[in-house]
Amino acid sequence: MEDVVIRPLEKVTLKDPILIEGLPGVGNVGKLAADYLKDQLPAKPLATVFSKFFPPQVYVSEEGIIRLVSNDLYYWKAGVSGRDLLVLGGDYQGISPEGQYEITERVLDFCSGLGVREVFTLAGFAQGRVVEEPRVLGAATNPQRVAELKKYGVTFSRNDPGGGLIGASGLFLGLGRLFGMEGACLMGETSGYFVDPRSAEAVLHVLCQALSLKIDFAALKAKAQEIDRIAQKIHDAEQRSGESSSTPAERPRDDLGYIG
Amino acid sequence: MEDVVIRPLEKVTLKDPILIEGLPGVGNVGKLAADYLKDQLPAKPLATVFSKFFPPQVYVSEEGIIRLVSNDLYYWKAGVSGRDLLVLGGDYQGISPEGQYEITERVLDFCSGLGVREVFTLAGFAQGRVVEEPRVLGAATNPQRVAELKKYGVTFSRNDPGGGLIGASGLFLGLGRLFGMEGACLMGETSGYFVDPRSAEAVLHVLCQALSLKIDFAALKAKAQEIDRIAQKIHDAEQRSGESSSTPAERPRDDLGYIG
Amino acid sequence: MEDVVIRPLEKVTLKDPILIEGLPGVGNVGKLAADYLKDQLPAKPLATVFSKFFPPQVYVSEEGIIRLVSNDLYYWKAGVSGRDLLVLGGDYQGISPEGQYEITERVLDFCSGLGVREVFTLAGFAQGRVVEEPRVLGAATNPQRVAELKKYGVTFSRNDPGGGLIGASGLFLGLGRLFGMEGACLMGETSGYFVDPRSAEAVLHVLCQALSLKIDFAALKAKAQEIDRIAQKIHDAEQRSGESSSTPAERPRDDLGYIG
Amino acid sequence: MEDVVIRPLEKVTLKDPILIEGLPGVGNVGKLAADYLKDQLPAKPLATVFSKFFPPQVYVSEEGIIRLVSNDLYYWKAGVSGRDLLVLGGDYQGISPEGQYEITERVLDFCSGLGVREVFTLAGFAQGRVVEEPRVLGAATNPQRVAELKKYGVTFSRNDPGGGLIGASGLFLGLGRLFGMEGACLMGETSGYFVDPRSAEAVLHVLCQALSLKIDFAALKAKAQEIDRIAQKIHDAEQRSGESSSTPAERPRDDLGYIG
Repeated sequence: MEDVVIRPLEKVTLKDPILIEGLPGVGNVGKLAADYLKDQLPAKPLATVFSKFFPPQVYVSEEGIIRLVSNDLYYWKAGVSGRDLLVLGGDYQGISPEGQYEITERVLDFCSGLGVREVFTLAGFAQGRVVEEPRVLGAATNPQRVAELKKYGVTFSRNDPGGGLIGASGLFLGLGRLFGMEGACLMGETSGYFVDPRSAEAVLHVLCQALSLKIDFAALKAKAQEIDRIAQKIHDAEQRSGESSSTPAERPRDDLGYIG
Repeated sequence: MEDVVIRPLEKVTLKDPILIEGLPGVGNVGKLAADYLKDQLPAKPLATVFSKFFPPQVYVSEEGIIRLVSNDLYYWKAGVSGRDLLVLGGDYQGISPEGQYEITERVLDFCSGLGVREVFTLAGFAQGRVVEEPRVLGAATNPQRVAELKKYGVTFSRNDPGGGLIGASGLFLGLGRLFGMEGACLMGETSGYFVDPRSAEAVLHVLCQALSLKIDFAALKAKAQEIDRIAQKIHDAEQRSGESSSTPAERPRDDLGYIG
Repeated sequence: MEDVVIRPLEKVTLKDPILIEGLPGVGNVGKLAADYLKDQLPAKPLATVFSKFFPPQVYVSEEGIIRLVSNDLYYWKAGVSGRDLLVLGGDYQGISPEGQYEITERVLDFCSGLGVREVFTLAGFAQGRVVEEPRVLGAATNPQRVAELKKYGVTFSRNDPGGGLIGASGLFLGLGRLFGMEGACLMGETSGYFVDPRSAEAVLHVLCQALSLKIDFAALKAKAQEIDRIAQKIHDAEQRSGESSSTPAERPRDDLGYIG
Repeated sequence: MEDVVIRPLEKVTLKDPILIEGLPGVGNVGKLAADYLKDQLPAKPLATVFSKFFPPQVYVSEEGIIRLVSNDLYYWKAGVSGRDLLVLGGDYQGISPEGQYEITERVLDFCSGLGVREVFTLAGFAQGRVVEEPRVLGAATNPQRVAELKKYGVTFSRNDPGGGLIGASGLFLGLGRLFGMEGACLMGETSGYFVDPRSAEAVLHVLCQALSLKIDFAALKAKAQEIDRIAQKIHDAEQRSGESSSTPAERPRDDLGYIG
């Protein structure tokens, strides 16, 4: 089979579209942000991406209906004044380095055909400690973009991320340049221990400013509070049980890992 | 070499055929069921599937004759009134995620050429505990099929399988949709500790109802009783030896794992 | 690059040639036998096989000259009365399952072009214990060949090899059948702990009978005695040192593993 | 995408050019040497090599600008009298055996098109102990080259490197021969515990003699002294702290590993 199969669901013409990528990763920040944006706009399904570089897996809905794992591209028409958007979300990133390259390249190629010349990638940045007020760290393809994002409160740190970016959020920018695309990565600080809607909210706030979008953050705030409540409950239970064999740092991860 | 080599053994024309897949997996339930069905119909060899995504291995028969590991497609002609069947069994599933996709896609492509528009996949569902009366869990490609299978006693659970289906039984349905095929997966509950003919029997009962097939279950029941006897003997031996270092849950797996 | 690159060194026409494969494996029995046969005939270099499925490695000779790891095909002309031979030896088998298939298929394709219709593969069979008088176990592509090899003292066991053959020695026969080739595998019993020229000698004796070849075994016997001497020295040293932390079964492997 | 993408930055005609390879590896000796040579000549960027066999990673500069990981080819024009040079450096070697082959072959193919018939590869040779005065070990594609390099003090040892060379420094020579290229590998002795500019200096001294190049070694010597100072400080700290749980051999590796 083809390494990557892109199934268009609709044929659209877009106005100078911007691609926004948010796939599963650290704290699921990027995926939470992209999925939330997609729902709020709301964006419509445009194409489904299947690949042999995803796990050989189907999901089963509560009604018993199967669905092959995929990445999914949505589009949103801005109307008369603004630029259209493409939002890429999905179940997985490619599960091998080679697969990461192949999938990213094919999606970029498809988006390039739709006129995309600009990319924002959304991700989490693991700090390894609880982060009360997540900052948004940035990286970009050129100095103008760095300067512009600083205006929206994005932090460009001399040392972070020290080892660079690994995975789709870096690759969409790095390979994007081979397609003549410019862009930036917005990384929400997060503990790295559980899914983090608060960090996703911080990232989306910056993105909305940069793109002059207005969305309602209420549902995302509610989700963040739900996570807080569960985390608190676990914390309390551990206080009561005293010297449990599992450390607080490990437990929340188990219990909160797949909420989101 | 080609990633997947399909060697036809015969040229046949089939009447609206249904593909039934049962490859090695949890409790070998799917393979046991498919092999038993193939023997009982009986179905005839149609094509052999070789692939570099199988292990580089040959089996040697008791007479010393070698045979390259493969998947194998059999066909059965229903006669005047019914629909023909294709049964896929074999030694292995693809041993890498990529291989799973490649093999499944090529077999589906071949079956599509034979007119297949409907697929049943057979599998085990590991419960991690002894299952006295295995239920058959289901997942399907559309709500009509869910409703229909419920009539045959198939359980569609809101939570199981929670993580979806991994491997050939999911992929034949997920990729099958890209070939315009509809279908369902029938999963027999099993402990997951040893091969489980009883679970295979439960799965086959549902399948035979759904396809209006009549087969003799005597030999499969006998196999189930043989497994029971061995399991009982192990259990008794462990009772006698008292505090053995291996747990009962581990021992039967070693001894029963390759019966089937 | 091509997955497998075969560089012919000479252009030859061969008379109904038989391919003999002996690559590194259990006890290095197959490689020892094939290399020894090649030297004794003596066979001439015919082609070099490079592949990205070998390790990315060069060897350096004592004179400081590098050589890319490879498999190597030699030919021997039988003269007026007999059939010509091709001998395949080398540094490695393919290091991934996929690589095993690709390399074997390409070499078979090349040999098929030279007229090969018959293959002997040489290997070791690990018994996990010291073997004083190694038997030669067999597996073949058809019953006639089984019957014929029994005449030369080859053992066809109902149970061995139980899990089949893994690697080149099985694959050259299994894939060979897709090229219309028949053949057999000769497996010399060996402990599996160190390289075993004695087992290689047993295998070669059978092969020479089957092919009506006469070669001098003196150098191979000498090598076997050298291994015996070293093994005895290690054994004596361990007896003296009493309860060493390493077991006798482990030590010879370390010290003898790369003699050969 | 293509397995390996070579993006030329400029079109040049070179005079009988020699390729010098120095990628990350043991002690980072090869990369330190190649990068230093490139800066001192100074050589100009000629082409960028991207590949799906590199990690899916971008680096972020101190200014926040991203850059996809790559290998990088530079050229240097010798002027009227000498031969031109190509210097290959980069962030990574291919991260799989297959990737090593693919990348090396494609770069060699590109360089072959530029007229390269001669290759020097630069590497470190891990001794597992502190090396005060690093020797330069050699391996070459032919005896003439061995003899010539001995004149520059290169050591050709009967036993080192015993297992051959693994990775790019061996492969550029081994595969280079398939392109009709001759060459040699220069390996600077190093402990293997940390990056080693002193070993890189030893390697470069030999290379400059062999190529009649004159470069200033001051900055490389300074870097070596900086490493020495840090190593001394760690050593002193450990002496003071007495029986620390980490051994001296482990600690410098952690602290010095990414200087260079």
